[in-house]
Amino acid sequence: MNEKENPKRNRQNSGNGNTGKKRYYKKKNPASTAKSALTPAAAPHTADKQPRNANSKEIKRTPVKIIPLGGLNEIGKNMTVFECCNDMFILDCGLAFPDSDMLGVDIVLPDFTYVEQNIDRVRGIVLTHGHEDHIGGLAYLLKKVNVPIYGTRLTLGLVDGKLKEHNLSGKVSLNVVEPKKTVKMGCMAVEFIKVNHSIPDAVGMAIHTPAGIIVHTGDFKVDYTPIDGQSIDLARFGELGNRGVLALMADSTNAERPGFTHTERTVGESFDKLFKKAEGKRIIIATFSSNIHRVQQIINCAERYGRKIAVFGRSMINVINTAIELGYLDVPKGIIIDIETMNRYESERIVLITTGSQGEPMSALTRMAMNDHKKVNITPMDFIIISATPIPGNEKYVTRVVNQLMKSGAEVVYEAMYEVHVSGHACQEELKLMLALTKPKFFIPVHGEYKHLKKHADLALQMGIPAENIFLADIGNVIETDGGSMRVTSKVPAGRVLVDGLGVGDVGAIVLRDRKHLSQDGLIIIVIGIETATNTILTGPEIISRGFVYVRESEELIVESKNIISDLLYNCSNAELKEWNTLKGKMRDALSDYIYQKTKRSPMILPIIMEI
Amino acid sequence: MNEKENPKRNRQNSGNGNTGKKRYYKKKNPASTAKSALTPAAAPHTADKQPRNANSKEIKRTPVKIIPLGGLNEIGKNMTVFECCNDMFILDCGLAFPDSDMLGVDIVLPDFTYVEQNIDRVRGIVLTHGHEDHIGGLAYLLKKVNVPIYGTRLTLGLVDGKLKEHNLSGKVSLNVVEPKKTVKMGCMAVEFIKVNHSIPDAVGMAIHTPAGIIVHTGDFKVDYTPIDGQSIDLARFGELGNRGVLALMADSTNAERPGFTHTERTVGESFDKLFKKAEGKRIIIATFSSNIHRVQQIINCAERYGRKIAVFGRSMINVINTAIELGYLDVPKGIIIDIETMNRYESERIVLITTGSQGEPMSALTRMAMNDHKKVNITPMDFIIISATPIPGNEKYVTRVVNQLMKSGAEVVYEAMYEVHVSGHACQEELKLMLALTKPKFFIPVHGEYKHLKKHADLALQMGIPAENIFLADIGNVIETDGGSMRVTSKVPAGRVLVDGLGVGDVGAIVLRDRKHLSQDGLIIIVIGIETATNTILTGPEIISRGFVYVRESEELIVESKNIISDLLYNCSNAELKEWNTLKGKMRDALSDYIYQKTKRSPMILPIIMEI
Repeated sequence: MNEKENPKRNRQNSGNGNTGKKRYYKKKNPASTAKSALTPAAAPHTADKQPRNANSKEIKRTPVKIIPLGGLNEIGKNMTVFECCNDMFILDCGLAFPDSDMLGVDIVLPDFTYVEQNIDRVRGIVLTHGHEDHIGGLAYLLKKVNVPIYGTRLTLGLVDGKLKEHNLSGKVSLNVVEPKKTVKMGCMAVEFIKVNHSIPDAVGMAIHTPAGIIVHTGDFKVDYTPIDGQSIDLARFGELGNRGVLALMADSTNAERPGFTHTERTVGESFDKLFKKAEGKRIIIATFSSNIHRVQQIINCAERYGRKIAVFGRSMINVINTAIELGYLDVPKGIIIDIETMNRYESERIVLITTGSQGEPMSALTRMAMNDHKKVNITPMDFIIISATPIPGNEKYVTRVVNQLMKSGAEVVYEAMYEVHVSGHACQEELKLMLALTKPKFFIPVHGEYKHLKKHADLALQMGIPAENIFLADIGNVIETDGGSMRVTSKVPAGRVLVDGLGVGDVGAIVLRDRKHLSQDGLIIIVIGIETATNTILTGPEIISRGFVYVRESEELIVESKNIISDLLYNCSNAELKEWNTLKGKMRDALSDYIYQKTKRSPMILPIIMEI
Repeated sequence: MNEKENPKRNRQNSGNGNTGKKRYYKKKNPASTAKSALTPAAAPHTADKQPRNANSKEIKRTPVKIIPLGGLNEIGKNMTVFECCNDMFILDCGLAFPDSDMLGVDIVLPDFTYVEQNIDRVRGIVLTHGHEDHIGGLAYLLKKVNVPIYGTRLTLGLVDGKLKEHNLSGKVSLNVVEPKKTVKMGCMAVEFIKVNHSIPDAVGMAIHTPAGIIVHTGDFKVDYTPIDGQSIDLARFGELGNRGVLALMADSTNAERPGFTHTERTVGESFDKLFKKAEGKRIIIATFSSNIHRVQQIINCAERYGRKIAVFGRSMINVINTAIELGYLDVPKGIIIDIETMNRYESERIVLITTGSQGEPMSALTRMAMNDHKKVNITPMDFIIISATPIPGNEKYVTRVVNQLMKSGAEVVYEAMYEVHVSGHACQEELKLMLALTKPKFFIPVHGEYKHLKKHADLALQMGIPAENIFLADIGNVIETDGGSMRVTSKVPAGRVLVDGLGVGDVGAIVLRDRKHLSQDGLIIIVIGIETATNTILTGPEIISRGFVYVRESEELIVESKNIISDLLYNCSNAELKEWNTLKGKMRDALSDYIYQKTKRSPMILPIIMEI
């Protein structure tokens, strides 16, 4: 806030209309602001009605802070805090899936500390769309900070499903906001803008703040021929650009890929060809449950080719039910049949829609492949389409499933060449289009690992945004702007909170290090019992191992280990037998030396001394 | 062997010249055969000098057995046994890298049981090329079955390096065989045929047997403009095809990819462009150490642009030394400099060649990226080329390294679009070419997972090979042919032998299951000491956990666990205290119920009862 103005930079950017505006909102009573933020109704485009001020020199406005708490330099757990004066709101609250080195961890959450510390200032949560990496952390956050949630209809429908699982349904204020509508968040206002993505009802946001307009694209692509007929609202992004966008935060997922992402409709065309090819066979299609447009296209094809549809996989059933309930799926009467009645139809008149497109071990498709599904046996009369690309890290799982399905004689379509999948994220040409429309003064690439953010930054640079106006930020950074300048002013707690079973955050570095150690070479336990009165060893040493070596075939090794510890104890003085920590260390060292020399392995060695 | 002839099938295939030949070799004294196989000299094309017999009805010849022991339905550990009368030889003996579920395992070997059982009949081992998945198991096999090895010069140079590591150097008979030469293996003869691959001196094999000629391509691609000027000997494959090939065994790695694999030379052209682009910066190139042609192209570029070369990574240094020694690298004098003298040169006059193109955690490039390398600090003045594609399963490791390098400000080139890597394996058009040239009667796709073998089989089917003549085999299958027919007649032991440290095969299903269990939720140990004379509990219960939960923050859980066990023991009758196995089971059940209910985790629970 004590940053000096940079007139040069302002001149450079004077064309984009960011300068010369009066404060958008003046300081308000925080309490009354908070109250107004809780009202469900939303005013359309209030932001546009601001008077513009021709005085282009006045650029130091009430500063606003942008604090990413997830989604930068990582894949998943997208979450950003916006803050101005005494008001704060949260954009998205996702989860991430654990890396392979987070052994035993179920999901990963953002660190909510900063939000908890400012609980009184949080006016609400806005959601861009209903994917796990944007809403999956919500239930955990709401248990700590119960504030109203704003999202489109489908997004909130999916959120409600999650809340039910966490016994939070009915306890949270869910407020439907249509695209083109705006919700107030204290001295800020958030406008919802239609975008295309691999789930319906996705929006970007224009955040109208006293310092200027910040555009957040959410996850987006440009689809000129989307399945639901509703294309991304490019015109609005352009309009905002002409009014002056202070900062753009844009999806970087596909920043490495040149060209345009194909329209979802190409997948429908592929399905059509494949349905023809699959004549006489049962069709099984695996895809992401949330890709409702994909499901719609399967339904359309099934109708065209006179097939019935059976749905497999818990999340697929849930999402399809929600989508039907809310009117996001156009389902001809009677086309979806119950799994139980499936046998009444000839198999060549059936399409199965299922989860498992990532080869997830417990998914319906994987169980079918491994011959472990109660209702479905894969045979050479099956034609299987995997309508997805493996997410990095899942390639081996998908390959395993493909191999198994093929071994059962089924035809399996999974390669890029068949165009049975298109991405939901914008490629380079679309990213440039977004930059060209919004003409931001500052640019913050979001939603990606460092390499994605960097490529996205390079694109912005090519398009003329000065390097010093591009921010490769990190989670926890407090990015502050007063409309004139932008800089990282401080840091707040940010990181990963690991969820394992019911435990949130109780698995940390030490536990993970131990799990890693145990997983590599197993463990050896040495137990002895010492009578403290007389300082004599009454029992042991006993040697027990797990995950180290198959004991029956390595008796010698275990016997010799026992001897080594016995000798060590025999040679201990009375005094040494009293220093248990030292004694444990000695046993550990002696055994680990011997074991490593014999096996070149380093199991965890756990000496236990029992007091008798 | 008691299979009936199929005149129809013979007629269908009479055009390929496989029928009507006399037995190639009559039964010989196995001992003398073995001796002749040991002679290092090799006769050129002895196989071609066989008289041909016009009688097309006599097709039941001395049968030959093909027994794959690795490389089918899996990636890696390629190994095949060929067997005729009393003679046997082995083609390749590779290793595989462990899957992610083989916790703590270092490498995976084929099961050598069948070879060990037939030790007296093994005449030798022939090697197609020097990659780990073809020679990496050799040292382990030789410790059990020391027979002569035949390979090209570079292959044996690399093998010698491995033997030294295992203290086997000088104890094994290594026999250099040039392409176009043939070695006798008892009643069979193996002819070496030049192929292209991502390592120099790769060969395919024509195995001349009494039953007919079996062609094994080894790993191959077709490179019309290879770096060493030596193109695959297509003419010889064609010649054999016209003489009549009984069976073709061909590399299926890229059977999913349409088109042709690009020539290695395209990478050189990319390097040239990138060296120009990197002017003023230090260049670092990571690639596979065995890709000597790639290294040659880096050397050529370095010379052209006046840069010195420093080599990093143990395997890179070893392979380059071997290649220089054997004359496989053309290195201008003084261009390779010692790492220690690197600082004497301006960094923009230097190229570093390094290992780590797969993001391997301990590799030189990874250490550089993590700021953990003694000699190399990454800065914005570095231009880094990762000249490789991630092997499935390694994507995340490579991405991590790329992100880290970029964070240090370096420019990193890694995408497909720059053509800094080409595959070493044939794509669909090359595979068809090989089928067209050899015109085999029977076809056995090898070297790939099921999906690759299946795609390759589909190509063969498209090219007119009858389905019943295509064998989608598995490791351990005994594929028997008498020249007229081919079928799987029996099975021999085959599978995975896991190597962990010095232990070969001592890590099995139980140990892996325990490691998996420990890695997911850690373990809880309960120790009690019972005085057997009086049947009283003298000590404990003591509860110790590792990898389960951070104990200091979960004291309550541990205290309550202790109480549960104490209560259980208190309520035990004297008789129950004597039944230790039952008692252990009770403690395990009680604690696991409680822990699961409280945490939804299932750690390994290990009750230990000490006798006092």
